[in-house]
Amino acid sequence: MKKYFFLFLICATSLAFSQNQDSLMLRKLYDYHLTQSKTYSNLEGLCIKIGARLSGSPQAEQAVQWAKKVMYAAGADTVFLQPCKVPHWVRGEKEKCIVSSSQTHLNCLALGGSVGTGEKGIKANVVEVKNFDELETLGEKNIKGKIVFYNVFFDQSKILPMDAYREVGKFRFRGASYAAKYGAVACVVRSLSSVADDEPHTGSMFYDTTISAKKIPAFALSYKAADKLHAELQKDKNTQLYVESYCQTLPPVQSFNVIGQINGSEKTNTFIVAGGHLDSWDVGQGAHDDGAGVVQCIELLSAFKKTGIKPKHNIRVVAFMNEENGTFGGEAYAKFANEKNEKHISALETDAGGYTPRSFDVDTINGLYNLVVKWKNLFSPYLIERINKGGHGSDIHALGKSGVPCIGFSPDNQRYFDIHHSNADTFDKVNKRELELCGAAISSIIYLIDKYYE
Amino acid sequence: MKKYFFLFLICATSLAFSQNQDSLMLRKLYDYHLTQSKTYSNLEGLCIKIGARLSGSPQAEQAVQWAKKVMYAAGADTVFLQPCKVPHWVRGEKEKCIVSSSQTHLNCLALGGSVGTGEKGIKANVVEVKNFDELETLGEKNIKGKIVFYNVFFDQSKILPMDAYREVGKFRFRGASYAAKYGAVACVVRSLSSVADDEPHTGSMFYDTTISAKKIPAFALSYKAADKLHAELQKDKNTQLYVESYCQTLPPVQSFNVIGQINGSEKTNTFIVAGGHLDSWDVGQGAHDDGAGVVQCIELLSAFKKTGIKPKHNIRVVAFMNEENGTFGGEAYAKFANEKNEKHISALETDAGGYTPRSFDVDTINGLYNLVVKWKNLFSPYLIERINKGGHGSDIHALGKSGVPCIGFSPDNQRYFDIHHSNADTFDKVNKRELELCGAAISSIIYLIDKYYE
Repeated sequence: MKKYFFLFLICATSLAFSQNQDSLMLRKLYDYHLTQSKTYSNLEGLCIKIGARLSGSPQAEQAVQWAKKVMYAAGADTVFLQPCKVPHWVRGEKEKCIVSSSQTHLNCLALGGSVGTGEKGIKANVVEVKNFDELETLGEKNIKGKIVFYNVFFDQSKILPMDAYREVGKFRFRGASYAAKYGAVACVVRSLSSVADDEPHTGSMFYDTTISAKKIPAFALSYKAADKLHAELQKDKNTQLYVESYCQTLPPVQSFNVIGQINGSEKTNTFIVAGGHLDSWDVGQGAHDDGAGVVQCIELLSAFKKTGIKPKHNIRVVAFMNEENGTFGGEAYAKFANEKNEKHISALETDAGGYTPRSFDVDTINGLYNLVVKWKNLFSPYLIERINKGGHGSDIHALGKSGVPCIGFSPDNQRYFDIHHSNADTFDKVNKRELELCGAAISSIIYLIDKYYE
Repeated sequence: MKKYFFLFLICATSLAFSQNQDSLMLRKLYDYHLTQSKTYSNLEGLCIKIGARLSGSPQAEQAVQWAKKVMYAAGADTVFLQPCKVPHWVRGEKEKCIVSSSQTHLNCLALGGSVGTGEKGIKANVVEVKNFDELETLGEKNIKGKIVFYNVFFDQSKILPMDAYREVGKFRFRGASYAAKYGAVACVVRSLSSVADDEPHTGSMFYDTTISAKKIPAFALSYKAADKLHAELQKDKNTQLYVESYCQTLPPVQSFNVIGQINGSEKTNTFIVAGGHLDSWDVGQGAHDDGAGVVQCIELLSAFKKTGIKPKHNIRVVAFMNEENGTFGGEAYAKFANEKNEKHISALETDAGGYTPRSFDVDTINGLYNLVVKWKNLFSPYLIERINKGGHGSDIHALGKSGVPCIGFSPDNQRYFDIHHSNADTFDKVNKRELELCGAAISSIIYLIDKYYE
C-alpha cells in the first residue's frame, strides 16, 4: 500500500512540476508576443504595402515573396515555396446594379467566380425570394428572363455570427445555379453581413452543373442596397434592375504555398502545422481574412527562437494559397505530404480574424482532444476558456481527410462578418493587443503539442 | 429507502425543469436584445446628439433629461431624478505643451481637476522619472522649479489591460502632489493608454494635501508626445517645456442620478440595482465610458416588459451622475437608500465598455457568489465562462460599503484603454452586436437574481 502511495506521490509531484514548467513557458511566450513581437507591424506591411491579393493576381505573387522574406526574418531554419495551380478570376471594370425607374445606383460587387454581363449589361424584372423552396414554388413561369434577388438576412439571434454565416452561405454559393435552373438571367444576393451598412461583401460562388448548365452573372448587394431594392419592389413589383459586370475567369496560374520550418531536434520526419491563408479577396486589404492568421503563425517562428524552445518535431508555419476560391493550396500541401510520406501529427488553422482568442476546436481522433482538454488550466489565465470538439479549417481539410488531427483556432467572432470579404476588411480594423494574443495562443498550443503529443 | 429515492427524483426533476425554464427565458432575453433592442440607437442618440457630458456641464444636464425620456420610453413604471451636488471643473481654452527649443507642439490634455497656468504659462526644465522612488531620490535640489515628467508605460504583458491601468493610475491621480512636494512647478504624465497613438487621455487627478499643500498644473501627454519629449531629453537634458492651460474649478452644481424603476410584484420595499454612469469626460463622446453601460441597463426595462417578466422585487436602472470626478452620484444613491430604509439585495455596475461579455465579478457576501456560480451553465451558451469572486464598481461602492452584495460586469477588456478618457471614445468605436450582448447578459443576471435571491 505504502509503495503505491509513494508512486502516486511521485506521479502527482511530477505532473505538478511539468504543469508549472509549462505555465512558466506559456507566460514567457505571452510576454514575448505582447511586448516584442512583430505580428502587428508584419500585418501592416502585408495590408498596406501589398493589400488585396486574390489568387492569380500580381499582388498574390508579391505576398508569396513577402511571406518568404518575413519567415526568414522571423528565424525559420528553412523557407520553401510549394507549387500549386490556382484559378485566376478577375473583376475587371467596376460592376453596376441600377434600379431602372429611379436610376438609383446600388452598392454591389460581382461574386467571385461569376461570369460577367459584358458592356451590354442585363436589364430585367426582379423576383425576390427568401429561400430555394420559394424559388421552386414560383417555377420557370415566374422566373424565366428575370433577375432573382435572394433577400435573406443574417440571423442576428445566433450567438456566433459564424453560425448565421453558414446558414445563408448557400444563397451566395449556389444561388446562381438554382436561379438559372428556372431560367433567370442573373441573380443578386443580400450580402452575408452582420451589419446594416452600405458595403457589399463578395465571396466565392460556384456554378453547379448538377443543378444547371447555364452560367448567369451573380452579384452581392450591400445590406442597405438590398433594403432599397426590397423597398422598390414593395412599391412596384415590376421594378426593373440593370446589372453590368466585366468579370471573367482567365487560365489558371502557377502559385505557391509558403512554408517556414523550424527543424525538429528528435523527430526528423514528423511535422506539426500551423497555418493561415495568404490570399484574400480582391477588395479591402485582407486584414482579418486572413492576413491576421498568417502573421499570427509566422510569429511562432520568432517566439520559439526568442524563448529558446527547441521543438522535437519539425514545426511548419504554412501560408496557404487560394483558400478563398479553390483551396488548391491546401490540397497541394496534403498531396505533397502524402507523396513524401511525411508524418503529420497535427495541423492547426487560424482563419477567423485577429480578435481576442476564445477557444480551440479540436479533433477527437488519436486522443488529441483529450490531451488538449488537460491544458484548460494552462490557457484559462489567458482567457481561453473553451476546448470544443471538432477541428476544422478549409486549408487543413485535405490533411484532415487523410487522417491528420486538426485544430481550429477561434477568436471572438462578433465583429468578423461586419467586414468579411468587403472593402472594410482593412488594417485599421485590427487591434494590436487582440492580434498579439492570438499569436501567443497559437505559439502556446503548438509548444504543448510538440512536447506532449506523438 | 424508496421514499428517499422518489424525493430525490422529484427534487432532481424540479431542478432540471427550473433550469430548463431559465434557459428558455435567457434565450428569449437574448433574442430580444439581438433582434429588437434599442441599445445601439439609444447610444447613438446620447453620443451624437449630446456627446461629451462632464459633471456640471450643460451637456450633463441634457443627458439627465435624455435618460429620463429614454427610460420612460423603455417602459419604466416610474422614473425619478435623485439630486446630488457635483464638482464643476472646466477645461477652458485648449491647453498647450510645447518643447521650447524646437517649438514642437505635443498633444496634451489638462488632467481633470487640475488648476490652470493662465495665459502666462509655465516654462521650465524637465525632470523625467519612472516612479515616485526616483522622485524622492532626486529630491528638492533637482526638482525645484522644474516640470516633472512621469514617463511610465502601460505594462503590455498584463493579460487584462485593466490591471496595467490600475498599476499606473497613481501617477495621474497623485503625481502632481508628489511633484509639488519637491518644488515642481507643473507635471506631465504619459497617458494611461494601451496604444501607441497621438491621443492624450485625460482622467481625474487629486491634490492630496497630506502630500503637499501646493497645487500645480497637471497634463496628460499622448503616447507619441511622451516619446517625443523623452527623445528630446535624451538629446538634451536641459530641454525646456512650455505648458499653458486655462482649466479651473467653479462652484459645485446641482445635478441628478436618473432612476428608472419596474415595480416589484411581491417585495415592495426591496430593490435590485443595475447601473452605469451618465457623465463622461469632456472629450470624445463617452461612448464606451460609459454611455455603453447606461444604455445596456436601460434596455433591461424594455427587455423585461417585452418578454413578460414581472419581477418580484423592484428593479432599478440607475444612470449615476459624476462617476468620473467625485462619485457624488453613487454616494447620494446609497445615502438616500439608507435614509429611506430601502432594502437593496444586490447592485450591479457596468463601466468597462460595450465589448463582448466575458465575466461577472461577484461579492461572496450573503451567498450571492455561490448562487451565481450555479448559473454558469446557463451563461456558457452566451460565451460568459467566468464567474469571478469580488464585486466592484465605483458608483455602487457606497452601497457595497453599507453591506449590499455587488456585481461588476466585465466585457472583453483589450480595446478599452486605447480610447478611454480620450477624444477617440466615440460611437463609431462601438460594435452593435457586442453592445447588445452586454445588455442581454445584464438583463439575464438581473432576471435570475430577482427569481432566486432573497
